[in-house]
Amino acid sequence: MNEVISPLKIAETLTALWSPKIVGEVDDAYVKVAKLQGTFTWHAHDDEDEMFFVLKGQLIIEMEEESVTLNQGEFFIVPRGVRHNPIADEECLVLLFEKKTTLHTGGVLHDKTKSIEDQLNQN
Amino acid sequence: MNEVISPLKIAETLTALWSPKIVGEVDDAYVKVAKLQGTFTWHAHDDEDEMFFVLKGQLIIEMEEESVTLNQGEFFIVPRGVRHNPIADEECLVLLFEKKTTLHTGGVLHDKTKSIEDQLNQN
Repeated sequence: MNEVISPLKIAETLTALWSPKIVGEVDDAYVKVAKLQGTFTWHAHDDEDEMFFVLKGQLIIEMEEESVTLNQGEFFIVPRGVRHNPIADEECLVLLFEKKTTLHTGGVLHDKTKSIEDQLNQN
Repeated sequence: MNEVISPLKIAETLTALWSPKIVGEVDDAYVKVAKLQGTFTWHAHDDEDEMFFVLKGQLIIEMEEESVTLNQGEFFIVPRGVRHNPIADEECLVLLFEKKTTLHTGGVLHDKTKSIEDQLNQN
């Protein structure tokens, strides 16, 4: 049976930055948490939307047409196909909601790229 | 373009209880908020999991095999097919993550049942 999950508590225990950990499964989507600091990398997910929900701190999502700033308790859904680059000036904890098919850095392979298997086994 | 959303702020403005409002769309799923107080109704979603994330207050989810209690910042995913009944002794604000096909009260039609159109137009 599923358990009651505190995403914030799990995110606080993460040691690796930009390395999502899968904490739940809703149909064909994963719920993930991640600890972010610094600048990630420009990428897009051609076929999947991506939801960022800020549990703690502040996240900037640069996109080509605009940038958005998310504070604690706020979410933003990056539409499929939109190139984006997440930036956290200070440590930021997020919950992500993504289809299981979503690749970490989209079509770009980067030294920060984590596979779904990495994300399932993330400590 | 999508907007930055504060689900808590939107949930606080809701006047109707047990009447979800759709606040986002991630692929084939909706993000919803709802204000809950009292006891809902036993139902199941045969083909969809359902995620409850507590933004404020406390939620009990009764199921036939067990009950779980969620406090602020915690989530629980009711697996597809599991009969459940949400209960909030005091006002509770939640974020829901559900497939677009999910019916409010599953196979049960109840006087509390809200259609997807209701949920899109909820004030």
